[in-house]
Order: sequence, then structure tokens, then C-alpha cells
Amino acid sequence: PAKQKSCRQRWNIRASKMSINTLNPIRSIVDGMKLTPNPEKPMIALSIGDPTVFGNLPTDDKVLQAMKDAIDTHEYNGYAPSVGYQKSREVLANFYSCPEAPLKAEDVLLTSGCSQAIDLAITVLCNPGDNILIPCPGFSLYKTLAVSLGIQVRLYKLLPEKSWEIDVQHLESLIDNRTACLIVNNPSNPCGSVYSKEHLQDILSVASKRCLPILADEIYGDMVFPGCQFHSMASLSADVPVLACGGLAKRWLVPGWRMGWILIHDRNQCFGKEIRQGLVKLSQRILGACTIVQGALESILNDTPQEFYQRTISFLKSNSEICFSELSTIPGLTPVMPSGAMYLMVGIEMENFPEFEDDVQFTEHLVTEQSVFCLPATAFEYPNYFRIVVTVPEEMMVVACGRIREFCQRHYRPRSQESAELDH
Amino acid sequence: PAKQKSCRQRWNIRASKMSINTLNPIRSIVDGMKLTPNPEKPMIALSIGDPTVFGNLPTDDKVLQAMKDAIDTHEYNGYAPSVGYQKSREVLANFYSCPEAPLKAEDVLLTSGCSQAIDLAITVLCNPGDNILIPCPGFSLYKTLAVSLGIQVRLYKLLPEKSWEIDVQHLESLIDNRTACLIVNNPSNPCGSVYSKEHLQDILSVASKRCLPILADEIYGDMVFPGCQFHSMASLSADVPVLACGGLAKRWLVPGWRMGWILIHDRNQCFGKEIRQGLVKLSQRILGACTIVQGALESILNDTPQEFYQRTISFLKSNSEICFSELSTIPGLTPVMPSGAMYLMVGIEMENFPEFEDDVQFTEHLVTEQSVFCLPATAFEYPNYFRIVVTVPEEMMVVACGRIREFCQRHYRPRSQESAELDH
Ligand SMILES: Cc1ncc(COP(=O)(O)O)c(C=O)c1O
Ligand SMILES: Cc1ncc(COP(=O)(O)O)c(C=O)c1O
Repeated sequence: PAKQKSCRQRWNIRASKMSINTLNPIRSIVDGMKLTPNPEKPMIALSIGDPTVFGNLPTDDKVLQAMKDAIDTHEYNGYAPSVGYQKSREVLANFYSCPEAPLKAEDVLLTSGCSQAIDLAITVLCNPGDNILIPCPGFSLYKTLAVSLGIQVRLYKLLPEKSWEIDVQHLESLIDNRTACLIVNNPSNPCGSVYSKEHLQDILSVASKRCLPILADEIYGDMVFPGCQFHSMASLSADVPVLACGGLAKRWLVPGWRMGWILIHDRNQCFGKEIRQGLVKLSQRILGACTIVQGALESILNDTPQEFYQRTISFLKSNSEICFSELSTIPGLTPVMPSGAMYLMVGIEMENFPEFEDDVQFTEHLVTEQSVFCLPATAFEYPNYFRIVVTVPEEMMVVACGRIREFCQRHYRPRSQESAELDH
Repeated sequence: PAKQKSCRQRWNIRASKMSINTLNPIRSIVDGMKLTPNPEKPMIALSIGDPTVFGNLPTDDKVLQAMKDAIDTHEYNGYAPSVGYQKSREVLANFYSCPEAPLKAEDVLLTSGCSQAIDLAITVLCNPGDNILIPCPGFSLYKTLAVSLGIQVRLYKLLPEKSWEIDVQHLESLIDNRTACLIVNNPSNPCGSVYSKEHLQDILSVASKRCLPILADEIYGDMVFPGCQFHSMASLSADVPVLACGGLAKRWLVPGWRMGWILIHDRNQCFGKEIRQGLVKLSQRILGACTIVQGALESILNDTPQEFYQRTISFLKSNSEICFSELSTIPGLTPVMPSGAMYLMVGIEMENFPEFEDDVQFTEHLVTEQSVFCLPATAFEYPNYFRIVVTVPEEMMVVACGRIREFCQRHYRPRSQESAELDH
């Protein structure tokens, strides 16, 4: 005891490895950037994945009324079951059920945002030392969560020239015995891509052949532009077990409310009781979503008018088109037109901008000179691109594109034939 | 690849170790019990730690109005920072700041319920292989979270004969080099105990001597009966770093809303930047509390009338007194009068109830015969006690106590001198 005591004679409190290993690449990149806007131009942030910040995309009044009604009942103040009220789970099951992928209340878990849905899904499927397949470029939370849990991530390539379809061969080459799950994000952040039925079937057939469960991040489900169709992964496969993660954040434009869910699709009993029980147990750690939002869910899902969804989508489409057509005429940039979600990726032909080392420097200087901030895609492990969020008001988008043009024109250097040859 | 492939030719999805190791003792005990009430008597559940279930303890109208006002501003639909709105953190800092333990907004993190506060606090302070000290009997979540994270728990004894004070000597004997944190729950679930200033100082002096940070679970803070005073741990020590966890759940009677917090007390810079940054990083995993509740927080804390708090406390006290005075005249039972929170522990002199093996069987039969359900304290690692929740309506409490009396009278067997001697 004397020895023990001596070892505790001074304060020596260290943060745990898990907290140190909870790495948020967006934070670490953005915090490392020198973001000093040009004082002559008001700042335009095209970087924020929050559709509510500019006030131009309010949620529907019905959605707000549903919350106030839930409060007035006085029925939703107590603890709900850790997986959510039975009634709310039922409502969600009905909302997302389809003949190809039927759902019952028992197949639904309510969570604190889609982030917790993803956290629970990864945590239940993977052990430390396992690996998961995630898209590149992709939403950074997958890696943040996996790495902190000691799970290895393997990035499969998306192909910008094929509207960000998955390089299925590359994906398949990454699978081994310790691959515990394949994450598919459709529609995609940061790409705004929406996969065709055929492409999804190709992905599913790999998962089926290699017996790999899918975590389908479908938080942007149904947020697709007219002419395009969203297919849920689960609706296209009868054998591959799918944990579909979603939430109110994007489609209903209330990300702060922290309402998410997991839909368990397991028609062949591959997950069996074990995964269901595992999810229930994990849900008991901190319990799930705010009960007022749970109580409002029935009305939110069933009473929100179709026009609300349509209005959001037309806006996102029209803004995407403005942005795309502006940027595609700027030498040195290669924007990729999205089909849904709220993002647009833009390639930078770095060899034409020799002053800048990479997308981080490029976007940093875009702030310094033009007060326009776009997220460098290094944050998505995809250098030499940047992501534009298309939820900003149209006028702002137009001004921002003009400033990006000015910036590029100033720094663009045509590659001479010689220098191109010298490179090889 | 042929070999690899063959290994993935059939579905074999197992739940992760972490999900399997997320053990909820209350669930596993209650689910294992045969709870068939007596059809002649309506069921009375004295087991549910949710003060809202009987409708007799509604939250204050101001609290509900604050929520509706927050909704009407349309300002609280977007993402808040992962640690909560600056304004809401400021409001909490002001509410809980005192000269002995001053707080600034930066010292406050908002979480999804006190459960997430505890989860973040344990996770930031402990690595797998470390150990933490937790009360016995104690709230089961501490062990659930710790074990799932690979952290060992060491139970320190509470002394029923000293109103559940901590056996400080025993506590100190459990400390070693891998002890990462001491959890103190005051006022206590399941004991209803409230510690005196002197006792808290004794605990703090051990923590100070052995350089041990404290996780103070003060979710029942200020819920103490008249004549008794609540002292926060942090207010009594200038050197021991404290993460104080709390929330709206109990005092404001809205557990479903999932609003909790961590107050960081670190006047001597023992946590330093590292623990603060670790907490921020962990908060980014799933983000925190619902923004509507965050937006309502200022009004909830500042406008709820004092009479509301007082009304709740007088009710809890009077119900505790009814229950205590009824049960203390029942041979074979030894209730311990609480001083706060919403619980009362009752000892069972098992030798006087030879028909039953333990508290689980005792409480199981109490359901079968009398339709009264009390939680066996085996769920708190404390056999031969049961816990009564004192939030039920007074009439119910009276009826329940009458039935417990009938049950005990029926099964009580006085210990003869002989049988007592035979035991030795
Ligand atoms: C692809 C994707 N998944 C999940 C989330 C997280 O959603 P939530 O705010 O409901 O946690 C986001 C948020 O930006 C996202 O883009
Ligand atoms: C001692 C103690 N701490 C924490 C909690 C959890 O509080 P919350 O519902 O805010 O997560 C409870 C709930 O019963 C409790 O009794």
C-alpha cells in the first residue's frame, strides 16, 4: 500500500484513448485553416450541412404544430421504452413499409438522430479488429465512430465520371473474413448522387455473394430531383440483411431535434434475434430520442403536405443547376451535377492552379480573397475536390459562383504542352 | 482469395461483444421473474423510476410553455454545437454557479439525458483495464456502461445503519493505480439518502489524498426534504476535480425529454485541457440534446416557480413518511427513512421468511399474492432489500403498504432460539 500510495501522490488525469481516438476530420481540417475573409466582401458559407441556417428553408408549420400538440397532451413527458414508443415505431413502420420490404413496429428503433442510429448499427455489427467498408468520398462520421471503436475502415472508391457510382470491383477486392459490414450512403453526402436500381442491385449481389450485411445510410432518402427515383436498398433484396438508418433531420429540415431511426430488414433471419437484442441492449445505454418529438412523429409523417417536400426538392434542384452551370464554364473546375440530397462536389484541376498545394489551400485562399467558404474534400478523404452545400438562398449562390469565377480566373494557369510532357 | 471466399459462403452475423456486454441488471432480473398479479387485486407498481407515470406529478405549466415558446421562435430547429448552444450553457452555468464553485459557460456540456452525461464522463476518464469505484447499492447504469467499455467496477459499501453513508475506509481500500474515477451519487437512487457536509468532506479528503477525480451524479440535487440540505460535491472542495452530472429528468419531472449536462469543476487545472477536449470530441459522436429543449432551458430554469419544486418535495416527503411509518411496524421488514430523491429501501429479514430464498423470490410472491411490485435490490447488487418508488399517489401508497403488511404477516415465521442456534 505504501508503494501504491506513492503512485497516487499527484494528480495525473489523462483523457482516455477512446476520446483521443474520436477524430473529427472536418473539425481538425477546418480548425487548422486560416479563415480570414476579405473585409470588403460579406462572408458566404457554402460549407454548412445545416439546411436551416439561412432561414430560407423552414420546416412545415404542420411539423411545428405537431410538436405543440404533443406538448399539450401532457402524455409525452415520461420515459419512453429505450427503443421508442410502440406507437411511434408502428407509425414509422407503416410509413416506410413496402411490399418488397415490409416492416413491423418491432423492426424499428428510434434513436437520438441518425448519428446514433449509425453508432448503434456499427457497434452491434462490429468487434474491435473487424473492418468495415465505407465510401470515398464519404460522410466522415463513419470513420470517426469506427476508429474510436477499434474497427478498421477500408475505403471503397466512388467514380466521379460515373456520377459517383461505386467501383464495385474495388469494393469487392476489399472484403475479407473480418469485414463486418458494408456502409452504403444513398443519396450521398458529399456527392449528391442517387444510385439507379441496377447499380444498387450490383452492390447487393456482391453483398449477397460474400454474405455481408449492409448499413444503408438513407437519411437523404426521397430527397431526389424530379426525373430520378430513390430506391431503398432493402426494397431491392430479399436476402441481404440491411440496417437502414434515417431521421427527420434533412427531409423535414429539423436536424437539431435529434430524431433518427434504424429500420431492421431481415427477411431471411440472417441477423436473427442476436442483432435485434444487441440493438435493444445498446439502446438502453443512454435511451433514445426526445419523447415530445416521438409523440409528434405520427402527425409529422402523416400530415406534412406533399407540397412541402416538393418545394424543398425543387429549390435544391434549381440551386444545384445554377451552381453547376455556373461552375462548369469556369476553366480549372469540374463540378459534378447531383441528383439529390443537398450537396455538389467540384473537382479542382490542381495542375492549373500551381499556386496552391491542394484543396485545403485552394479553399483557404478562396476565403481570404473572396469570402466564400467551401469545405475542402480532404475532409472526406478525397483531395482536390471541394463540396458546396446547395441550401443557401439563390441570390447568395449566384454571388458565390461569381466570386469563385473571379478567383479561378485570377489564379488559373493554362498547362503548356511542355510542362505537361515534363511531368512524365 | 478462394479460401477467403469459402469462409464467407454463408451468413454468420453475430452481435458484437460490446452489445453482448451491455448488461442491464434490472432487465435481466425483472425479465426472469414470474410476475403474475393476483387477478382479484389491481396491480400497483412501486418499481418504476418514472415520476410521471401516475399523472399525479405533472411538470409545471411554465415548463411546457417554455417549450412551445421555443418552437414558436423558429430559432431552434438547426444543429446546435455538439456541446450545446452557448446561451443554454451560459444559463446553466449561472443557475448552478456559486461562490465556492464558480461556473462559466465553457464548463458546461449539454447531453442527451443524464445517462449520456455519465457515459461521456466515464468514457473520457477511463481506459479499458482501469477500474472505477461505484456505490453498493447503486444505480445500475454505472456498471452497465463501465463493463461494456472493459472497465472494471469496484463496489464500495453503503451503510444502511448510518443512513446509507459511504464506508469510507472500505472505499479507500479499493483504490489502486488503475482507479480512474470515484462515482458518488448524492442524493441517491436507490437509497434516498442525502449526505451531510461533513460526510462529503470525508469523501473528498480521500479523493484529494489519493488524487482521484470524482464523477458526482447529482441528478437528484436539490430534491431534499425540508430540514435537510443538499451540498454539491464541487462546492466543498477546491482541489478535487469533479464532473457533476445532472439533468431536467427528475427535478423538473420530464425524464423523456432527454436533457442532461456535465458541469466541469476544475479549479486546480487537474483535468486541464485534455479532459475538456476529450469531452468535446466525444460529444461529436452523436451530438447532444434536442434543440427545442435547449432553447427552452433559459425559461425552464429561471421561470419555474419555487412552489413547483416545493410541492414536489412535500409530496415526496409525506409519501415517504407514510410508507416508512407503515412498513416500520411490520415484523420482518426494516425500512430506511430517506431524506431526498424519490426512493426508499426496505430490508427483508430473510430468516423470518423461510419460504423465500431471496429478495427476488420475496418480491415475486408479493406480486402473485398482492399485486404489488417492488424492485428487488439484487438489481442494485444488494440482496435482501427491495426498493420502493415514492412517487405513486398517496392512496395507492397506503393500499400498497396494507397489502405488504398482509403478505408479511402471512409469511413471517418468528425465529425460535433453537433454530437461531442451529444456524451456528
Ligand atoms: C450521410 C449522413 N448521415 C447521417 C447524418 C447525421 O444525421 P443526424 O443529424 O440525424 O444525426 C448526416 C448529417 O449530415 C449525413 O450527411
Ligand atoms: C442516479 C441516477 N442517475 C442518472 C439517471 C438517468 O437520468 P436520465 O433519465 O436523465 O438519463 C437516473 C435515472 O433514473 C438516476 O436514478
